[in-house]
Amino acid sequence: MRDFFDLLASHASVRKFLPQPIPDEHVTSAVTAAQMASTSSHVQAYSILRITDSETRARLVELTGGQPYVEQSGAFFVVCADERRHRLLFDREGSTHERNLETYLVAVIDASLFAQNLALAFESMAYGICFIGGLRNDLDTVDELLELPEHVMPLYGLCVGVPEERSEPKPRLPLDAVLFDDRYPSDEAMLRAMDTYDADMQQYYASRGVPGRSWSKGILRKFHEARRTYLHRYYAGKGGRLS
Amino acid sequence: MRDFFDLLASHASVRKFLPQPIPDEHVTSAVTAAQMASTSSHVQAYSILRITDSETRARLVELTGGQPYVEQSGAFFVVCADERRHRLLFDREGSTHERNLETYLVAVIDASLFAQNLALAFESMAYGICFIGGLRNDLDTVDELLELPEHVMPLYGLCVGVPEERSEPKPRLPLDAVLFDDRYPSDEAMLRAMDTYDADMQQYYASRGVPGRSWSKGILRKFHEARRTYLHRYYAGKGGRLS
Repeated sequence: MRDFFDLLASHASVRKFLPQPIPDEHVTSAVTAAQMASTSSHVQAYSILRITDSETRARLVELTGGQPYVEQSGAFFVVCADERRHRLLFDREGSTHERNLETYLVAVIDASLFAQNLALAFESMAYGICFIGGLRNDLDTVDELLELPEHVMPLYGLCVGVPEERSEPKPRLPLDAVLFDDRYPSDEAMLRAMDTYDADMQQYYASRGVPGRSWSKGILRKFHEARRTYLHRYYAGKGGRLS
Repeated sequence: MRDFFDLLASHASVRKFLPQPIPDEHVTSAVTAAQMASTSSHVQAYSILRITDSETRARLVELTGGQPYVEQSGAFFVVCADERRHRLLFDREGSTHERNLETYLVAVIDASLFAQNLALAFESMAYGICFIGGLRNDLDTVDELLELPEHVMPLYGLCVGVPEERSEPKPRLPLDAVLFDDRYPSDEAMLRAMDTYDADMQQYYASRGVPGRSWSKGILRKFHEARRTYLHRYYAGKGGRLS
């Protein structure tokens, strides 16, 4: 299925959308198809909210750090790790729902396998997508705004729409920095592979008018300061167990 | 791209494989294509090990709870959340690498978006796949066996191979239990949607010779006892920060 490899290869996040909504039937067929993703022991520990209210979407632009496409895309979704469905079954039985880092991880992984299927389903219909990690900037306020019940844990947003502008796909790490046979490589080999990539990415950025930018500088800047340090408190407060 | 929806719709985990290895060029083209998955700020915080050593694969059968396809599939991979590459850059600079639940989450999500792309890439080439959450049964021993360095955090395995037997796709939760507009539904509505699904799944299992089995009973059994309670200690010991 060569077409499918082309679909994967052509992915680049879209951040400019035409003001066209997404027909309901596209949303329902994409979500239904995406639900066929693998799920740990069939627990299906995820949910997705489509935000249709325009005031809420405007507020979410602010809460995600001023990303206008959160409002302007054809549809905006919030992807959640969801342990609530299971909890409701336990509550009805009067039985104990045991959760810990394992069940939290299962929910995050289930949600993300589903979300990648969903992103591809929309892309296969010629829509553009962009995941919004900025949703985690202020989950307390997002939570209040969306009135999320306990055990429903928002992870990230997803913008979907008709692209006004498409970017070229961005080069990824070389294969020898990501795929290994049997053993993780030596530090020297890994640093070499990253340096090769860094040189390529500097050229890539320079050719796009951003000379001096590199991948490694971005990593060093990004992880130099602790970000979103409230997350453990937030998820634990939602009834997630991270221990 | 109707074909792509067929690809998603036809997914069912494969657990019986023909003894045929996967050509290297299929592995490299699938991994390369899968790397085009979205990644938070382009950090690409994942790695994948292909286990080629037959003794190691035999040992992994035991460690994952006796799943023979871990040895018998054409290829077996270990998908890892990877903060090590970033760490090496920080160490070289003599600078501080700040990690917390946010960076751990980013790595788990990045790895899972990538892994779902990878699963689909193999399925699009007519291979069958099965994720192996059982890898988390005993990560201390897996870690020692694979000599994983600090900051490389195994999440799950992935079997890929030529199917000897394919199962029919298993029905998923109804759309109204998973996709919501603006607000999460009431407990009553959610329980109703789960009950409908449960009735369907009971029929599904009964028609496959397992009368009395249901989805909700499976959930109640699975989460009644705490499992893999050592995970926090293990990931924290790998230098992951979960706070």
